[in-house]
Amino acid sequence: MSLKVLVLNSGSSSIKFELFEMPSEKRQARGLLEKIGEEQSKLTYTIGDSKYTIDQKVADHGQGLRLIIDALTDQSKGGLKDISEIGAVGHRVVHGGEAFSETVIIDDKVQKAVEEHIQLAPLHNPPNLLGIKVARELLPNVPQVAVFDTAYHQTMPAYAFTYPIPYELYEQLRVRRYGFHGTSHRYVAARAAKILGRKLEETNLITAHLGNGASMTAIQNGKSIDTTMGLTPLEGLIMGTRCGDIDPAIIAFLARVKDMPVAQIDNLLNKKSGMLGVSGLSNDMRSVEQAANEGNTRAALALEMYCYRIKKYVGAYTAAIGNVHALVFTAGVGENSDVVRERVCSNLQNIGYKIDVEKNRGVRGKELDIATADSPIRILIIPTNEELMIAQDTYALTAKK
Amino acid sequence: MSLKVLVLNSGSSSIKFELFEMPSEKRQARGLLEKIGEEQSKLTYTIGDSKYTIDQKVADHGQGLRLIIDALTDQSKGGLKDISEIGAVGHRVVHGGEAFSETVIIDDKVQKAVEEHIQLAPLHNPPNLLGIKVARELLPNVPQVAVFDTAYHQTMPAYAFTYPIPYELYEQLRVRRYGFHGTSHRYVAARAAKILGRKLEETNLITAHLGNGASMTAIQNGKSIDTTMGLTPLEGLIMGTRCGDIDPAIIAFLARVKDMPVAQIDNLLNKKSGMLGVSGLSNDMRSVEQAANEGNTRAALALEMYCYRIKKYVGAYTAAIGNVHALVFTAGVGENSDVVRERVCSNLQNIGYKIDVEKNRGVRGKELDIATADSPIRILIIPTNEELMIAQDTYALTAKK
Repeated sequence: MSLKVLVLNSGSSSIKFELFEMPSEKRQARGLLEKIGEEQSKLTYTIGDSKYTIDQKVADHGQGLRLIIDALTDQSKGGLKDISEIGAVGHRVVHGGEAFSETVIIDDKVQKAVEEHIQLAPLHNPPNLLGIKVARELLPNVPQVAVFDTAYHQTMPAYAFTYPIPYELYEQLRVRRYGFHGTSHRYVAARAAKILGRKLEETNLITAHLGNGASMTAIQNGKSIDTTMGLTPLEGLIMGTRCGDIDPAIIAFLARVKDMPVAQIDNLLNKKSGMLGVSGLSNDMRSVEQAANEGNTRAALALEMYCYRIKKYVGAYTAAIGNVHALVFTAGVGENSDVVRERVCSNLQNIGYKIDVEKNRGVRGKELDIATADSPIRILIIPTNEELMIAQDTYALTAKK
Repeated sequence: MSLKVLVLNSGSSSIKFELFEMPSEKRQARGLLEKIGEEQSKLTYTIGDSKYTIDQKVADHGQGLRLIIDALTDQSKGGLKDISEIGAVGHRVVHGGEAFSETVIIDDKVQKAVEEHIQLAPLHNPPNLLGIKVARELLPNVPQVAVFDTAYHQTMPAYAFTYPIPYELYEQLRVRRYGFHGTSHRYVAARAAKILGRKLEETNLITAHLGNGASMTAIQNGKSIDTTMGLTPLEGLIMGTRCGDIDPAIIAFLARVKDMPVAQIDNLLNKKSGMLGVSGLSNDMRSVEQAANEGNTRAALALEMYCYRIKKYVGAYTAAIGNVHALVFTAGVGENSDVVRERVCSNLQNIGYKIDVEKNRGVRGKELDIATADSPIRILIIPTNEELMIAQDTYALTAKK
């Protein structure tokens, strides 16, 4: 049965969307509405091969989704005949806590649960929730599903998800490692298993999702057993503006020595750290790489730190898994930076990774095995597609009905 | 030239001491003065094979050191003939910042530098400084040296010691990774090289100092290139009461949700976390192991988390070093817990570590290679001796004069 699936990713002042025809996986439209609630909002979208832009004030997410649906059903631009053609909606939701270990059909109970997890994700869950509310109002008879960034990691064992802090903080406030980017890690894991010719449930992987946000996952028998992000997306790898792992005592140090309020320090660690903080130039890997090439020492340092931390996690997760079949690079930096991939994999032959430097060079955004023929462990580039994963989940859950 | 070296480790209300005859390395006395400044202080010490205890009020560190010297020169108990027999004093100092990359003879300038590093180590450097001051007063003509916990790690490259936070925080406040337990890591590294029959400067090691405080160091060509502790001793491994690595956002989360002041959170992470926090029972590995054996699930969880984190750092540092010659276990837990050693090394054959489970079983506090004959990397137990290392440094610097 063919079904048109609308995928929505609602941010605090934006809605990202893609429309897929399933199960053919043909993308029919995609776009981004920005600056909701500001003086001038902006909708850019593509139907087929044509690009369009609409500049107009959009007061709230409800108005925003109406504008998007109007654009998608504008037949003069090759859009859908009618809103009723939309057969299902898939929502990206950041935090599902311990309540959701897989994609679910949204009902009032699920919607309430998303609301209840606002305490754990105060920046992300509120706009996700808003997107669900307005979509259910506008498309009341269309089945809608929630795909959680955290769900894939719910298979982590307790020794990997528990923090070594007073246990009561877990019992009372659910302070634990959740992990994020689960949809992306799950997508590339499934692709990797196919490429390797293995059953997913017999495949061991380390997946590195390296975008502006970045995380790695240790996957054993197809399941997440550990991941670098934690209670929040701040932990783990060095990111565009996030610090990842640091001595947690740095916060009390800054509070004491600089007399900074903790919320300000939190902001500094989330928005002014990472590649931006060290290089002083940019959160964007392309700019940092270029500056490093041109001799900027702080950019070179940031790049080296970035790769070194990934390399250490490759080692850590290889130790955790034992018998790794492949290391997977994905997302913006992972798919496009041959420099990062080469540095991460350099001098790792003792633990099973041998990169083919020539094969790796210049590869951008395409599936490729860049390990040498005699490398005990494969090294794969796999472009991620979280929206397609959401569409697949949505189709799988709703087409059956 | 023979020299009697007094080694002092001054805490906020205690002085630990050992007296060595150098270069024979014969320990002549050792002891601990506790509860300085309290109603009733207590000095316990050993001269030769005899143990003594003195209970009396000791008002301050000056009075304390006088009492210790009186005890050491009590000829009725086999002590020194005279205070003048003490040829040199070696002080343990926790934080030398970037100023000290090796042991130094103390002069006014060095003493001032120890004082200037109080901001970085507000709990440890003040009593270390006090110990130096009173010893210099009491033994004005005796050369004294400072052995810094941080010094050994000053060889770390910038990509390992820089934090991915705004670079200005390093430039202005010297916020960076320093690392601690340097004296212990250095001591066991030298022993390991001897055992392996290699030159230290051509030896690559991972050293795991597992005491109530715990840290690991990646050593390449005899030099520290990375270590788990950071700006403070809070980072890295799970310890008796310290959390080690956690999502740094947990602090802002607790501040927001529990309305806790940051100093209270810092105290919670330093004093109520780690093995104590998870098990709810004890910071002592022996108690946690016993409880886990008796079926206590939280003790079992704490033990599993503890070993899993060390295992991940073994992998991370193996990736960082490339060609590791040996993994070294030392300090209370490392020397005595066969359970921890076995669990850390289990299922690491893919990255070169094969433990001989039988050989490992029951070994406590003695030098032994517990790897299988065909293990590509050796696994060594080496009892540490920080006091002896301090005495050796002190002798090397002062006997020449």
